[in-house]
Amino acid sequence: MRMSAFLVRTLREAPADAEVASHQLLVRAGFIRRLASGVYTFLPLGLRVLHRIEAVIREELDAVGCQEVLLPALHPIELWEQSGRAALFGSDALPALTVDGRGGTFVLGPTHEEVVTATVAAEVDSYRQLPQTVYQIQVKFRDEARPRFGLLRTRELIMCDGYSFDVDKEAMQASYRTVYDAYLRIFKRLSLDVAPVEAQSGAIGGDVNHEFMVPSVVGEDWFVRCGGCGYAANVEAAERAGTSPDAGGPAAEGPPTVEHHTPGCPGIEDVVAHFDDSVVTHASLLKSLAVMDDEGRATLLLLPGDREARLPSGWRLFEESDFAAHPTLVKGYIGPMGAQAAGVQVVADLGVARPGPWITGANRADHHTSGVLLGRDFTVDGWGSYAVVVDGDPCVRCGQPVGLVRSVEAAHTFQLGTKYSDVMPGASFVAEDGTEAVFSMGCYGMGVSRLVAVVAEEHHDDKGLVWPEALAPFQVHLVALGAGRAPEVAEAADALHDRLVAAGVEVLYDDRDVSPGVKFADADLLGIPVRLLVGAKGVARGIVEVRRRSTDEEREASLDAPAADLVAG
Amino acid sequence: MRMSAFLVRTLREAPADAEVASHQLLVRAGFIRRLASGVYTFLPLGLRVLHRIEAVIREELDAVGCQEVLLPALHPIELWEQSGRAALFGSDALPALTVDGRGGTFVLGPTHEEVVTATVAAEVDSYRQLPQTVYQIQVKFRDEARPRFGLLRTRELIMCDGYSFDVDKEAMQASYRTVYDAYLRIFKRLSLDVAPVEAQSGAIGGDVNHEFMVPSVVGEDWFVRCGGCGYAANVEAAERAGTSPDAGGPAAEGPPTVEHHTPGCPGIEDVVAHFDDSVVTHASLLKSLAVMDDEGRATLLLLPGDREARLPSGWRLFEESDFAAHPTLVKGYIGPMGAQAAGVQVVADLGVARPGPWITGANRADHHTSGVLLGRDFTVDGWGSYAVVVDGDPCVRCGQPVGLVRSVEAAHTFQLGTKYSDVMPGASFVAEDGTEAVFSMGCYGMGVSRLVAVVAEEHHDDKGLVWPEALAPFQVHLVALGAGRAPEVAEAADALHDRLVAAGVEVLYDDRDVSPGVKFADADLLGIPVRLLVGAKGVARGIVEVRRRSTDEEREASLDAPAADLVAG
Repeated sequence: MRMSAFLVRTLREAPADAEVASHQLLVRAGFIRRLASGVYTFLPLGLRVLHRIEAVIREELDAVGCQEVLLPALHPIELWEQSGRAALFGSDALPALTVDGRGGTFVLGPTHEEVVTATVAAEVDSYRQLPQTVYQIQVKFRDEARPRFGLLRTRELIMCDGYSFDVDKEAMQASYRTVYDAYLRIFKRLSLDVAPVEAQSGAIGGDVNHEFMVPSVVGEDWFVRCGGCGYAANVEAAERAGTSPDAGGPAAEGPPTVEHHTPGCPGIEDVVAHFDDSVVTHASLLKSLAVMDDEGRATLLLLPGDREARLPSGWRLFEESDFAAHPTLVKGYIGPMGAQAAGVQVVADLGVARPGPWITGANRADHHTSGVLLGRDFTVDGWGSYAVVVDGDPCVRCGQPVGLVRSVEAAHTFQLGTKYSDVMPGASFVAEDGTEAVFSMGCYGMGVSRLVAVVAEEHHDDKGLVWPEALAPFQVHLVALGAGRAPEVAEAADALHDRLVAAGVEVLYDDRDVSPGVKFADADLLGIPVRLLVGAKGVARGIVEVRRRSTDEEREASLDAPAADLVAG
Repeated sequence: MRMSAFLVRTLREAPADAEVASHQLLVRAGFIRRLASGVYTFLPLGLRVLHRIEAVIREELDAVGCQEVLLPALHPIELWEQSGRAALFGSDALPALTVDGRGGTFVLGPTHEEVVTATVAAEVDSYRQLPQTVYQIQVKFRDEARPRFGLLRTRELIMCDGYSFDVDKEAMQASYRTVYDAYLRIFKRLSLDVAPVEAQSGAIGGDVNHEFMVPSVVGEDWFVRCGGCGYAANVEAAERAGTSPDAGGPAAEGPPTVEHHTPGCPGIEDVVAHFDDSVVTHASLLKSLAVMDDEGRATLLLLPGDREARLPSGWRLFEESDFAAHPTLVKGYIGPMGAQAAGVQVVADLGVARPGPWITGANRADHHTSGVLLGRDFTVDGWGSYAVVVDGDPCVRCGQPVGLVRSVEAAHTFQLGTKYSDVMPGASFVAEDGTEAVFSMGCYGMGVSRLVAVVAEEHHDDKGLVWPEALAPFQVHLVALGAGRAPEVAEAADALHDRLVAAGVEVLYDDRDVSPGVKFADADLLGIPVRLLVGAKGVARGIVEVRRRSTDEEREASLDAPAADLVAG
């Protein structure tokens, strides 16, 4: 492809809204353009990378027996009412867009669990037809509140979403593992160093699930990684080691409690400041959060004052109406004393299982209590790892200190089990024993357009993009220098171009009438793996200069060298 | 691919809403499934055909220098306000869907003239960067009032839409011709016998445009074809030969006019019935239609009473308010006498240029006038071919009688000229002479998902689909018969399957435990070009039966024959 005829224009300046390198470089190099907030066009260069990623995904998924389908983007809203997810619309957990037309109200598919369940249910009657794993590569729509980082968080995206259907949980786990392993192979071919981490399931649902995280300085997510045993989990899902009091708790001995007048001190910071902060620290305080658990029970969640709470999936903080229904719990001054008597269960993070007194709310406006002892002044109904893990916490598996890794999510896989098939009509089959059973499902999502940015983020330097060979939009960037003044250069470059193309090499040929500086800068910016430089001096000697973008290695080769030698960089 | 693991289920009965063969067979054979009215899922078999069509399109467009891009489906509505097309929303001419989200109001792209113009305008500054032709293969959304015929008219569709940008009209015509010729090559490879016909431009706009029509008994469109000179045009655009009075009109001599009381006779039928229908025919009547022309001028359009009017693009029939503004024209009793004096221009179909008297409205309620003569009683300001062409009309080019052909539209190409670049901001470039010029554009649309149905409609028989080799979902349908009872059959079929796959052949392997009758019927229904039959008797003799779906030709081949021989059918 001759650059003089190619739809590519490089920009010196990144757009003002581009905060991260991948966004800046993909726009500057002419791979993508913003049409609206979170809505991007793929120009020819960008689409070539997107298509290469799609080809890798298809190869790896097809190789393990997954079958490609194409499900509609328009979903009758009735399907979402069947699954119960229509109730989540408009929340950040499920930012679905809906559209009204002459055919009724449709959801613009942000994900396809409902549609695929209805589709496969109509095709599969018998265990003999199982397992089935289908996938599609398709546009998705999300009513994203804050699109940012270019292709990393958008309103419109290309996604590969897969769904497995099995006879039971064990078979589902096998299908899950098959796709999980294929995902790892895909990311390897995309030159992405991915860590699969245990994660919360959010709006998709199910029990076990994994996020495939790429460590990245621009990441918006953090995951916990143990260098000892390899444990890895999203911070929203990560647990830490600890000992519950049942296995030898603290002694409940000490001076009696004292109530303090602490007006205007509803927060941890306020209380520490109220007391002498040379003796009272955040860790001295017992944080008491009023929450509703996933079964709707009023619950106090206790954790040390220096830790952030990690709410289990389905739990939520008290709203005003909850406080009104539970007057014992005084907002801003909550403590665990007497909670159970008021019908409120108490659960605590393992960090609360320590000897020594706590300062906590007195359950009385403008008052806190000190000297509060576990076992004497309050009791706990259930223990768990309810605090967000921080650097240095003991690993829940092996006890060694863990680290926190900033990262971007490249994919997410879920063991859904029967979450959808239990509620969607007809999502059943005749099992081997003749009984009617519902599908055990898995689902698998990978943001394909997002991966263009993830790869660019991981593979660039200060001069521009540095594409891995498998994903580069072209294999070779052929640059002719001074061809306007030296006809022999144009002739040699044209001939080399034609010879490479005839050999099946994908060549971007910079035949433009611009300065060498512009050509070099553009070649660095575009990041095609091999640059072939044809200039007057080289042509006189019958040589071409070969430069590898990733290493800056340069060598000379004969203008007549076999194409395979030149492409090898 | 083993059918036992493949997501395909054939149906004995076609769905009740399937009126045409392609719809019936694509559903029965498990290629597509209906999710909602006009919204279809592509199951693995259907998607394979879709992908093959896409590959052909890409090869042919890339070969002539078109560049693939991917434009968003979400269009900021402001772009459509700039082009003026937002005013067409909700009309049948532009059944666009819009969606509201946190990012504003978006149009769900039914076509991409606005977006591509804005996109290319941002990249191209100079004539040196022209021409550019871009295309995309992408999902489109239409608020279709009456989806029908399966994939032929849908709310969600896959479309290939291309757009060319040139320095001037001449260059645009060259780009148009390049894509036009590529389209013809594409349809040839799709085994479709396509006729390019001149057409009206509708909501897209522009001057010259062509529809690529496939003659089909299920077509909803008709086109006019002259066997003599090859002239072809959509009935909405077709003209016929005729002589205008300027070149020797009728003599305006005859008895004077007579006014008749014709109460309750606003229609042609009524008037014929009112007079003696042994002497008065439809052709005796002068039909006078009150219309607004494309410049908003009140106009009477005259044509013989036995012809249907063909309104030029941009013209419309009078509404009630127009009649109120022109009291001279009495609805149901309009005639041309005195029209010009009342400020109404008169245009006439060439069929009106005949000698002899007319019966027409008297411009007085409940009255008609007979003996009306052209030249004496009324005059015409402009002549043209304003009647819908019918079988046997003289060809506008060569005068020979034309025929009407029922057909489906496979593609539509437009010479837009500067329709969009004149009104969209920044759609200009610096021309070679240093002046600022606007792009001359063409646009090119092909319904890719629709083509699956068009091909199926043209290539089937009473037993099922008959795919052309280039588009078939698999090359070979391998059928093992009685493998459950005869292990040597399973062994031979497995070995043949593996050998073909290793040779790069795409094989659908019917390894199911069902009767020969079911396997044969399914093979016929699916329509894969070559069927290889492995049965106990054949295996004993070391042979496989080879059958070609399109011709029913059968032959025997050695089980060890080279893959290429077996695939050759």
